[in-house]
Parts: sequence; C-alpha cells; structure tokens
Amino acid sequence: MQGTTAPRVRVFPGRRRICDAEPVDILDELRDLIGADQVSTAPERLEAYRYDLSRDPAAQTPLAVVRPVTAEQVQQTMKWAAAQRIPVIPRGAGTSLSGGASAQQGSIVLALDRMTGIAIDPDTRTAVVEPGALNIAVKQAAAEHGLWYPPDPSSVEISSIGGNVATNAGGLCCVKYGVTRDYVLGLDVVLADGRLARLGGPRLKDVAGLSLLQLFVGSEGTLGVVTRIVLRLVPELPPPATLVALFATPDEAAAAVVETCSAVRPSMVELMDNASINAVEDFQSMGLDRAAGALLLIQTDAPGAARELELEVAQRACEKHGATAVFSTDDPEEAQMFVAARRAIFPALDRLGPLMLEDVGVPLPALPALVRGIGAIAQRHRLRIPVVAHAGDGNTHPIIVLDPADPDCRDRAALAYDEIMRLALSLDGTITGEHGIGRIKRPWLAEQLGPDVMDLHARIKNALDPDGLLNPGAGY
Amino acid sequence: MQGTTAPRVRVFPGRRRICDAEPVDILDELRDLIGADQVSTAPERLEAYRYDLSRDPAAQTPLAVVRPVTAEQVQQTMKWAAAQRIPVIPRGAGTSLSGGASAQQGSIVLALDRMTGIAIDPDTRTAVVEPGALNIAVKQAAAEHGLWYPPDPSSVEISSIGGNVATNAGGLCCVKYGVTRDYVLGLDVVLADGRLARLGGPRLKDVAGLSLLQLFVGSEGTLGVVTRIVLRLVPELPPPATLVALFATPDEAAAAVVETCSAVRPSMVELMDNASINAVEDFQSMGLDRAAGALLLIQTDAPGAARELELEVAQRACEKHGATAVFSTDDPEEAQMFVAARRAIFPALDRLGPLMLEDVGVPLPALPALVRGIGAIAQRHRLRIPVVAHAGDGNTHPIIVLDPADPDCRDRAALAYDEIMRLALSLDGTITGEHGIGRIKRPWLAEQLGPDVMDLHARIKNALDPDGLLNPGAGY
Repeated sequence: MQGTTAPRVRVFPGRRRICDAEPVDILDELRDLIGADQVSTAPERLEAYRYDLSRDPAAQTPLAVVRPVTAEQVQQTMKWAAAQRIPVIPRGAGTSLSGGASAQQGSIVLALDRMTGIAIDPDTRTAVVEPGALNIAVKQAAAEHGLWYPPDPSSVEISSIGGNVATNAGGLCCVKYGVTRDYVLGLDVVLADGRLARLGGPRLKDVAGLSLLQLFVGSEGTLGVVTRIVLRLVPELPPPATLVALFATPDEAAAAVVETCSAVRPSMVELMDNASINAVEDFQSMGLDRAAGALLLIQTDAPGAARELELEVAQRACEKHGATAVFSTDDPEEAQMFVAARRAIFPALDRLGPLMLEDVGVPLPALPALVRGIGAIAQRHRLRIPVVAHAGDGNTHPIIVLDPADPDCRDRAALAYDEIMRLALSLDGTITGEHGIGRIKRPWLAEQLGPDVMDLHARIKNALDPDGLLNPGAGY
Repeated sequence: MQGTTAPRVRVFPGRRRICDAEPVDILDELRDLIGADQVSTAPERLEAYRYDLSRDPAAQTPLAVVRPVTAEQVQQTMKWAAAQRIPVIPRGAGTSLSGGASAQQGSIVLALDRMTGIAIDPDTRTAVVEPGALNIAVKQAAAEHGLWYPPDPSSVEISSIGGNVATNAGGLCCVKYGVTRDYVLGLDVVLADGRLARLGGPRLKDVAGLSLLQLFVGSEGTLGVVTRIVLRLVPELPPPATLVALFATPDEAAAAVVETCSAVRPSMVELMDNASINAVEDFQSMGLDRAAGALLLIQTDAPGAARELELEVAQRACEKHGATAVFSTDDPEEAQMFVAARRAIFPALDRLGPLMLEDVGVPLPALPALVRGIGAIAQRHRLRIPVVAHAGDGNTHPIIVLDPADPDCRDRAALAYDEIMRLALSLDGTITGEHGIGRIKRPWLAEQLGPDVMDLHARIKNALDPDGLLNPGAGY
C-alpha cells in the first residue's frame, strides 16, 4: 500500500482554501472503506488517468485514481470525498474530445472502467449496463438476441456507455435513429452526498415526476456519477443500401443534403470535403476521387420499394445540385468500404500533427454557409481545416491540423477555433453538437446560452452539488 | 373593468399566511400592466377555468383568469405574481386528466389559449408554435408542407401543444415514433421571477450545457411557463396497413403483443378488452365481436415487403397465442373504422356515468399480469373497469365507471384506483405513463420514486421557484 500525504493547500477551481487536515494519509481512509485495490497513487497510473483523448494541456496530476467495482464503492467514495471536500472527476473510457475528464490537481479521478457488466433482457428489449462497458460491447451483446443499440459515435469501439450518457453522444445513425438520450430508460446515479437515486426503469412511457433522468443525460459528470444504465434496444435491421456522390464544392453537397432530408429519412448522411478525402487517400488509398470538392455518403435502410424511392430522391437531389458523379450499391462490402473511409478520417489526420477537433452544428439550411465560412477561416489563417460532417443533422467536425514545424501555427489555430464557434453561433448554431463542453469549450458557452440560462445552470448545480465537488471546471 | 378585493387570507398549498395587503384591487395593477382585456374576474369565466377535464372535485375558484396574447404579457404577469406572491396555475386547453390545471383559491389561472400561432419552416423541418395551438392544428399545418408531427394523444383534437409539452404527452404512435419530448427542439420558458429563458433551438444535435430543455418537458407547469415551442417535424408517411385480432382473454392478446414487439416495430399496437368492446358497440355499433375477450389493433407503416413481413409476424404471434380470428386490411377507410372504434371508448363510457381514468404502465412482459390483475380488482370491488391500452408501450388506461345510482360505488372505486396503482408499482411499473401526476395522483408519487428522488425534486423546485408560486400542489 502506498501512502500519500494530504497536500497542505488544495486547489479548488474557482476558489482556494487552506486545508487544516493533519498530514495523515486521507487516502488510507478511502482504502479502508473500499479496499486498497481500488485506490492507486502509482505515478504511471496517475499519468495515464491525467488526460482524456483531448490531451488538454491544462490537465493536472490527480491525488489518486479510484477504480471501484461496485455501486456501493462509488457511494462510499463520494461520501468520503464529500466529507473531505475533495473534487471528483468521473471518467468512463477517457475518450472525451473536450477535456470532460481531464484530471485536476487535488482531485481524485473516479474511473468506472472496471464496471463493465452487460445484461440483455430480450423480453423487455432492454440492456442493463454498467457505465464502463464499451458501446461496441453493448451492440454485440444486443446482436446476440437479434437486437440493436443504435447510437454510434465515431468512438464506438473505444468509448464507454457511461461517457456516452454523460455527453449524450451522437454518431452517424442519429439522423434517423436519434442520440444516446433517446435510448436511456433508466439511470442509477450516485449524488454528490453519496446517496444513490434510481431514475426511470424498463418502462417505455413514464411521466411520474420531473424528467430528472433526462437532466442527468448530458450533464458531463457535474451532477452525479452514473453507476447503472437501462438502455432501450430495437429489433435489428437489414443492411442498408449506399449512395456516394461527388461534388465540385461542399456547398453543392450541403444543398443536396438539405433537399434530400426534406423529403426522406436516410439512415446516414455524411459529408467529407476535399481536404478530408485527400487525407484519407494519403493514409490508405481507397480509390476516392482526389479532385472532388466534396463527397456525400448517404445510406438508406428502408425496406423494399421505399429503399429504391429514398435512393432515387437522394440521387435526384445530388444531380440537381451539380453532382459530378453519383453511384449506389446494395453490396454490404462495397458500402462498408466507404463507411470505413469516412471513419478513417481521424487516424488519417492524427498522423499529420496535433489536431484541434471542432464539433459545431447549425440548423440544416445553414450548413452550406457554415462549410463555406470554415473554408474562408482556413484560408485567412493559412491552416489546413478538413471538414467531415454528420451532414443530415447539420453537425460538422472541422479538424484544425497543427503543423509542428510552424511555431506560430498554434496561435493561428486558436484564432480559427474561436472564429468557427462564433460563425456557428451567428448562424443560430451550437458550439457543440455531440462532444460536450468539457473544459475546453467552457469559455464560449455563455455566449451561446446567455446570462439567464447560465444562471439557471448555476442554480441547478448548486441545488444538486452545493460544494461543487463533481467534475469542477467542466460542463458549463 | 371589474374590481376584486384582495382576500385577507390567501391559501397557499402546504402553508397559510395572513396577507397584509391593503384591500385595494391588486388585479388593477395587473390590468395596467398587460391590458384589461387580458384579465377577467367574471364569475362565468372563473367557473369555466376552475376545472380541467379531470373535473377534480378539489378544484377551487381562482382569483382571476389571465389570458395573455404575448410572451411579454406572460413575463409581466409572472413578475406581478412574484411581487404579490400570488400562485399561478398555467393552463393550455384544460384537457388534463389528472388535475394538472385545477384552479386553486387565491391563485390566478394563466391560460395560454389565446396564444395559438403556428409557423412551419419546411427547410429546417420545424414548427415554431405558441403553447395554446392545438395538436391537431400543428399536424394540419405541417401536412400542408408534406410534413408530419407524430405525437398523437387521444386528445389530439382538443389538447394544446403547451399542455402536451407540460405532460410529455404520448399517444397511439409512440410505440414507434416516441413521445412529445422526442420532438421538442426548443422552448421559451418564462421563469418564476418573470425572466424568459430560451432553451435549445432548431438544431437537431446540441449538447451545450445541461439538458434544461428536457427538464422543462413534462414538468407540468411547476418550473416555468412555456411561451414558444420549436418542434421537429418529419416527412409524411404513407397510410398504414392494419391487422385486427380477437382473443378469448386479454392475457392472450397481451402475450401476442409481447411477442410481436420483440421482432418488429409496428406503428400502432392498441388493445381493447371485452368491456371496452361492448361499451363502444353500445355507443355506436361498429360490428365488433361482443363475445371477444380482447381485441388487438396493430398497424404497420413499413413500406414494401417489410409491411407484409410485419403483418405476417404479428399474425403468427396472434395465432400462436390463441387468436380466435385475425384479419388485415390495406384499405385506409376500413382501417380508420377500427381506429375510430378505439378512439370512441372515452365518449362511449362517458355516457354511462362519471369516470375515473387510470394511466398505469409496466414493462412490456408484465402487461398480461397487469391486465389480469385489473380484472381481479374489478371483480373484487364489483366495478366495471374496461381496459384500453397502448399495449406496445405497456401503457394501459383502466377506466373505472362509477354508477351514479349506487351510493357506495365511489368508495369502492377509490379503493380500486389505489389498488391499480399499487399493482402497477408491484410489477416495476409507473402510476402514470402519459397523463402526468397533476393533483390527483400526487399521494402515490413518493411510493414510486422513493425519498431520495423526492428530495431531488424538492431541491430542483426550490432552485427554480423558491416561493412555490408555479402550479403549487401539482406535478410532484
């Protein structure tokens, strides 16, 4: 067992106080409560849990990493933290792209990555899942019963359901099948004082009391720690048909998206701009047309004649808006190749240098203006900003590629990052469609929400976590 | 202009206080603020706005009925009410079935029934709607653009969108298309202090900040007054195909529902028991089999071959579970007749005497046990309790018919009402699937939620409405 001396001064975001605690090992108390195996202060463990996938440079070394295996241990940890006034950073698989799980000095990281249980109930068509279970594992467990858990963030293979709930994660299928919130029927939440509240359950309709369940979804670990999730599953669907269209400009592609989605409900509508196409081709040649200004990837899983109809509507919309080529396929393998190309964008760009990943969204008709504006920002700041988009939702991921060899590139990127969010807001959009505010986007939130809504946030937070111990500095 | 003297004692639910106000007409202040036309104390108006559709006997005569025509007038009314500490009962079309809009002595009824604007934006596929607009009016306005607003409570022709948002109303199509919450993208909410918060907007994905929007949906007017709603619309669908199956017992019908819904996603799954069938036949003969123990009405709007498949799956499930007859039709008029029969249940029963309308729900596999248990309760208390159910959601409406000629019938009905909710809770169910808690179901809520979740409610309420002025006594 390894000892840690309580720091004489603990830093709380937004306030500082002198801690009068005796220099005994306060972590020993926690070890006594939940077992020594669950509490680590090993330097390599602290370092591994310091950052999430955003690699937020402001992340700090935590006091300890706590990895409970039961909800009771989570409750005991929260009670201990409340008594000691130690901030708690809840963490699923650590794949936040906005610093939602960056560690803070003087805090503990409460990692749920050992709570990975999954139980499928085919009769109620629900999954009861622990927060550390990966999204892909839930999908696979459901598939064994002919069932489907739709939400599919790009991180589907590495992100946890707990993290998905914390950010109300989206993905590629949302355009037809909705986001994480639409599949959460029940939550067990450990509150700031260590009590456990059970919200909702395996009922498809339930309006008894306030929608607290929905308040916790997307709360980024600032209101409680989720220890159990009841997810709604749906019957599995047949494989989709796929249409690929090339355009000279992203504007034209975006216009085709607006037109398609006003008539039919495709199950996927993804857009890649020229820079994305070339990044993927550089990474792993898939035979994409490097000269194309944009590529649209549209899928329909409608059955029978409706499938043909949806493909036709999409094709006509693409042609009307100047597509230079349109082709479609019913072959799952060929389709999978295009989806793989779309999903390859992050690894492809990751090789080129550090990335600043954006997540802005706008009402669908503003999508062309957003894509055009991002191009102008890239040009003005001499930056490479490939854009991929869940275009059917108006949700784009401009990816600012930093050039490590260019010393003032980071300053220009910071300007561009700011300008992209302001551009989205000027188009009645949002600074985050699915990644969450985390710590990185916090400076922009008030501009989107305004003072009255920010005040509502403060009142809710204060009501549920008056000492501000849960994920301080994140979420809002 | 008609004067009203401030009562010397105002009754606040849960507390009483002596009011020191001078006997000047405090309503004149309000008339000065928002115009005399918006404030009425005419006795017939007070009486008309005293009750909602539940005819809660505990409803009291309000101080005044305030009917603003702009959000600014709602804000001014709330500011005035906050200053005067006068409770406010928000009201849409007054179709609450659980006393959510029953007036209280010393309160004003804030009726939104003159704010009925609807604007459809086909490009964003959204409707911007004022709270008093009826659900059917939104559906019709959307249909003019080839669009569809799915939520369809049985009250679709008489209930307002504001009321639908307040209760998170469900309906017949929810089994496939979800409830009101799934279509609310944005809300303007006037808070207890008169400030207006704009939450969300015409964006399909937005995770900036807490899910306050979702917290307000289903809050039954206890946290704020909704003045503007942005609704998501979807492309219109072709008319469905319909299957009707008869069974000797509701148990068998319920078992067929469970089996059907585990394999396919019908767009409607309604159940009527023998008592419902006969009540409808008595009311208006539709040729239903009066001897049947239960009737299932299943629709599929899947296109092409999938439609045949879904009908086949449902038919096989019905036959497997003992259906005595199964027939299906693609003829919209014939289908409409069955849907009309289902919807006729309330007017049919309404003639027979006062009704106590239940709204309990259970996880789908518990549906047979629930229906069976309700039958036993009816028998034990010598009551007529027809059951109709949104069976695919596990949401049932047992309807206790009171016999005006039987003096102790009301006492037995009260016992049955209580036992039905306890039965649902014992099956891991809910006391309300879509009607809301209102005032009538409040005594049972704590039993469902438990003390910790009730405490969370109190903390949220206190954070947003510390003086308890918004719909006191309702919701939780």
